[in-house]
Amino acid sequence: MKIKVAQEKLSHALNNVSRVAVGKATLPILNNVLIRVDKKKVSLITTNLDLAVVDYLPVSSSEDGVITVPAKLLAEFISNLPKGETIEISTKDTKLTVSTKKYSSTINGTIADDFPEIPELNEKNAVIYKLNIDDFKSSMAKVLVASSNDLSRPALTGVYFNTYDSKLAISATDGYRLAEKLLINKVESEVKAIVPSSSIQEVLRSINDDAEEIEIAFNEDLVRFRFGEIEIISKLIDASFPDYQKLIPKNNNINAVINREELIRITKLAALFSKSIGGSIVCETIKPDSFLVKSIANEFGENDSRLDTTVNISGKINLNSRFVLDALNALDEDEITFNFSDHIAPVLLQNKKDKTYTHIIMPLNS
Amino acid sequence: MKIKVAQEKLSHALNNVSRVAVGKATLPILNNVLIRVDKKKVSLITTNLDLAVVDYLPVSSSEDGVITVPAKLLAEFISNLPKGETIEISTKDTKLTVSTKKYSSTINGTIADDFPEIPELNEKNAVIYKLNIDDFKSSMAKVLVASSNDLSRPALTGVYFNTYDSKLAISATDGYRLAEKLLINKVESEVKAIVPSSSIQEVLRSINDDAEEIEIAFNEDLVRFRFGEIEIISKLIDASFPDYQKLIPKNNNINAVINREELIRITKLAALFSKSIGGSIVCETIKPDSFLVKSIANEFGENDSRLDTTVNISGKINLNSRFVLDALNALDEDEITFNFSDHIAPVLLQNKKDKTYTHIIMPLNS
Repeated sequence: MKIKVAQEKLSHALNNVSRVAVGKATLPILNNVLIRVDKKKVSLITTNLDLAVVDYLPVSSSEDGVITVPAKLLAEFISNLPKGETIEISTKDTKLTVSTKKYSSTINGTIADDFPEIPELNEKNAVIYKLNIDDFKSSMAKVLVASSNDLSRPALTGVYFNTYDSKLAISATDGYRLAEKLLINKVESEVKAIVPSSSIQEVLRSINDDAEEIEIAFNEDLVRFRFGEIEIISKLIDASFPDYQKLIPKNNNINAVINREELIRITKLAALFSKSIGGSIVCETIKPDSFLVKSIANEFGENDSRLDTTVNISGKINLNSRFVLDALNALDEDEITFNFSDHIAPVLLQNKKDKTYTHIIMPLNS
Repeated sequence: MKIKVAQEKLSHALNNVSRVAVGKATLPILNNVLIRVDKKKVSLITTNLDLAVVDYLPVSSSEDGVITVPAKLLAEFISNLPKGETIEISTKDTKLTVSTKKYSSTINGTIADDFPEIPELNEKNAVIYKLNIDDFKSSMAKVLVASSNDLSRPALTGVYFNTYDSKLAISATDGYRLAEKLLINKVESEVKAIVPSSSIQEVLRSINDDAEEIEIAFNEDLVRFRFGEIEIISKLIDASFPDYQKLIPKNNNINAVINREELIRITKLAALFSKSIGGSIVCETIKPDSFLVKSIANEFGENDSRLDTTVNISGKINLNSRFVLDALNALDEDEITFNFSDHIAPVLLQNKKDKTYTHIIMPLNS
């Protein structure tokens, strides 16, 4: 195998793929990147068995071949070489040699036969969507915040892609809060699939400024994200997502329109005082024009802050301050609506204008 | 007690002092800041028993009094209030109330009698030096890198201020390397004092753009740093610093003048390959014009890189790559001198022109 390639290109591609190469003690080859050269096309591939990352790297001169070497070592080595240099890579048996005019290194690799098989998505039966990449990024961030880390409930550790009324929506919930974002307003083909949140995060980390569009392809048990020169193939989570539509409250009767930045500020103030009591704060509307956020008196002291707003009914509700802050940070308009009813129904938080994003939070017992 | 003060001023002062307020379980009052108001002058004081930080805050309107409250809670609370607001602080017994137009909080404090006594430096017998604050910062950073964390050898956990030949120098060593920097070229009064590295780091963190000069005052067992509105008073380390002058090699005969950035690069490359063998690398001169840095062959592979330079004698030495990188990062000229002799004598690293900084590294057994 032989490659001649510019330092910047190779370094960029290796950084893209080396992040997932974190081998478990039982399978150290997962530390490695598979380098395959096939007719002037170089593929760099890493996998953690749940997902695989492939970066395609065009080169001007090459000889075919395949090898695997420690991904982080090679990535760090190449990134420390001077920019602008042309790097020559060649292999002999399981040794890979990197050389430039002044530098020369031999890295011990292993044969590619031991590398796990990378699943391929069969395009024939696949459901494929295309999205502007900035929309994709901002939408995913808005729902990931509500997703869970609790591996005992696998469905909650993912983002649910689901079509209804010819729309594609994504949602996530950890059982205490739920976020839904409309992704595409009109779609032809249907999907119901839970993508691991960790895979979405890997996609978000890999997106760079080059790509403008992302293609998402689903089949029965796989999803493939394709953008720029990169492909990320992930297993789907084999579980049923909760029937979340019925959790979104329809009859909350207390409404307040609130300046988002101001509400973030006073929620943070109350949160400082509620650390010792699990972050519990009280949100209260006082007719006709006050919205209060208060901490419950405790060893540190007490705090209460007021916002001017228009309020239709007086009422109050206990919430986890961290969940309120997460929701407010996922919203993006200057003004948001805070909608609740009593101690049992969830709070509904939305932007004042754009209603394609819905965030609900279960109240705490008071 | 009553104070009226601008949010920015109070927030800035609280951030300066609250960092050291990390109470031990046995003495929770060390979490607190002591607020003393005395004739329109507010002092904010925190201590961890080894050092104390005092910030003086001029205010336009006040009533005398004294209280202690949790420092981090108050600092975070004030920093979250809107900029430009005037904050009113008042106390009633051990409760401190912070209020602005829309926000109101009561923080539970404790009486000031329980707060540890802050040592005062007696100016009469003190030795006092004044320094440009940028020189102070850069000089301290250059020697701190060689200081130790090993509490079983207290002298090595500090920076040694010591006068000789009417000069003031600072130095630090962890037993494997040593750094010395000339601080003032001509001084009248003498000092030999070891300041805890942690106290110096606290001074560096507290320095902001306002101050141009720093005053350092020593007496028998204390040092006081004074800059801007801040005073930091620290205990000295009661131990003997090694007689380090005799450790600096005088008879090293192998010399190379090297581009610092290039040497950093190739040392990093070799370090990548030497992780599994404790970071050991080989530096080698080959007459007349090569400087090599190599890793020792191991499970990962091997690496060797070459620099062009002028070399008087061929030779080689084994060094810890991390120590070499620390030294190169503490130096600051484009070209540096790398000076060694055999396997036993330490390597001497200096800037090519400015010889006021000396860094030596003990070789590894080869």
